[in-house]
Amino acid sequence: MPHITLPDGVPGIRGLFELRPDIAKPLCELANILLHAPNTLTPGERELIATHVSSRNDCDYCQSSHGAIAAHHLDGNDELVSQVKRDFEQAAISNKLKALLAIATKVQRGGKSVLPEDVHRARQQGATDAEIHDTVLIAAAFCMYNRYVDGLATLLPENPAVYKERAGMIARNGYLGIPPSSH
Amino acid sequence: MPHITLPDGVPGIRGLFELRPDIAKPLCELANILLHAPNTLTPGERELIATHVSSRNDCDYCQSSHGAIAAHHLDGNDELVSQVKRDFEQAAISNKLKALLAIATKVQRGGKSVLPEDVHRARQQGATDAEIHDTVLIAAAFCMYNRYVDGLATLLPENPAVYKERAGMIARNGYLGIPPSSH
Repeated sequence: MPHITLPDGVPGIRGLFELRPDIAKPLCELANILLHAPNTLTPGERELIATHVSSRNDCDYCQSSHGAIAAHHLDGNDELVSQVKRDFEQAAISNKLKALLAIATKVQRGGKSVLPEDVHRARQQGATDAEIHDTVLIAAAFCMYNRYVDGLATLLPENPAVYKERAGMIARNGYLGIPPSSH
Repeated sequence: MPHITLPDGVPGIRGLFELRPDIAKPLCELANILLHAPNTLTPGERELIATHVSSRNDCDYCQSSHGAIAAHHLDGNDELVSQVKRDFEQAAISNKLKALLAIATKVQRGGKSVLPEDVHRARQQGATDAEIHDTVLIAAAFCMYNRYVDGLATLLPENPAVYKERAGMIARNGYLGIPPSSH
């Protein structure tokens, strides 16, 4: 049961967005800049970072929803998403993305855990300042979203098929127009 | 040294805001809703929650800047801010705020750490659903801001007096109009 009264039948962060549209606005804008707006990191790469951090934070809703969006961007490759969550260093992804996921892992633990050698490794694999910045902020932002969702004990969808159903819509349209009444 | 190139002489999150005004916008809007907009929790109470979480995350910049803003709202009572950071259960604050700080402590650890009994305690001290919601999101948001500031190894101000100088301005005007060039 959620810790506060939330709209009936609207799982995860979507119930919170319905409850508080004033807060949904900046939170969706931030997600859209970080995950959907043009970037030298692909949307699939950025969603993998979000999914990995949500998995490390043990947030079922966020790792399932962003895992489904990541898979949608990656031609439906659910197995790759699982690989990244299990052990990204062994996954079939670029060395640059592995180095960025290592930075995200440190950020999840705490900001001061990120060391110059972590950043050096990413640069050696071709990561730019902007990509390092965005990786740190995606990881930091999911430390917020995950705690918002779980700190209020929001519910999971009754039917897990909705993750995939919504993933295509978000992959196409981004996070700005999330229709709160689409449940 | 910061992990990426940042504007010279602009410490903490302010350098990041100058670098990325697109991201500053939603982050400042969120801070303004949570900490400055009208609320049944006073700005001083909300800044204490932000300061406490920043202290638990060991973020020097955020605990100093929000600690100074909290003290400004609390008639300059720096000692109360220190008490809350040291041991809020013994501090000279209301039982309701103690219960909300206990929830914030749990959120800082992880969303799932918040238990029904934590929420029950807050309700028994008169906390509303909205206050519990806002406490969880303030704590979650500072788990993001703190990691953003430290994950990129931003610098501290050379002169710590700027925390107090800026605190009055932010306490009066809020977070929306933070002039990035005011350094």
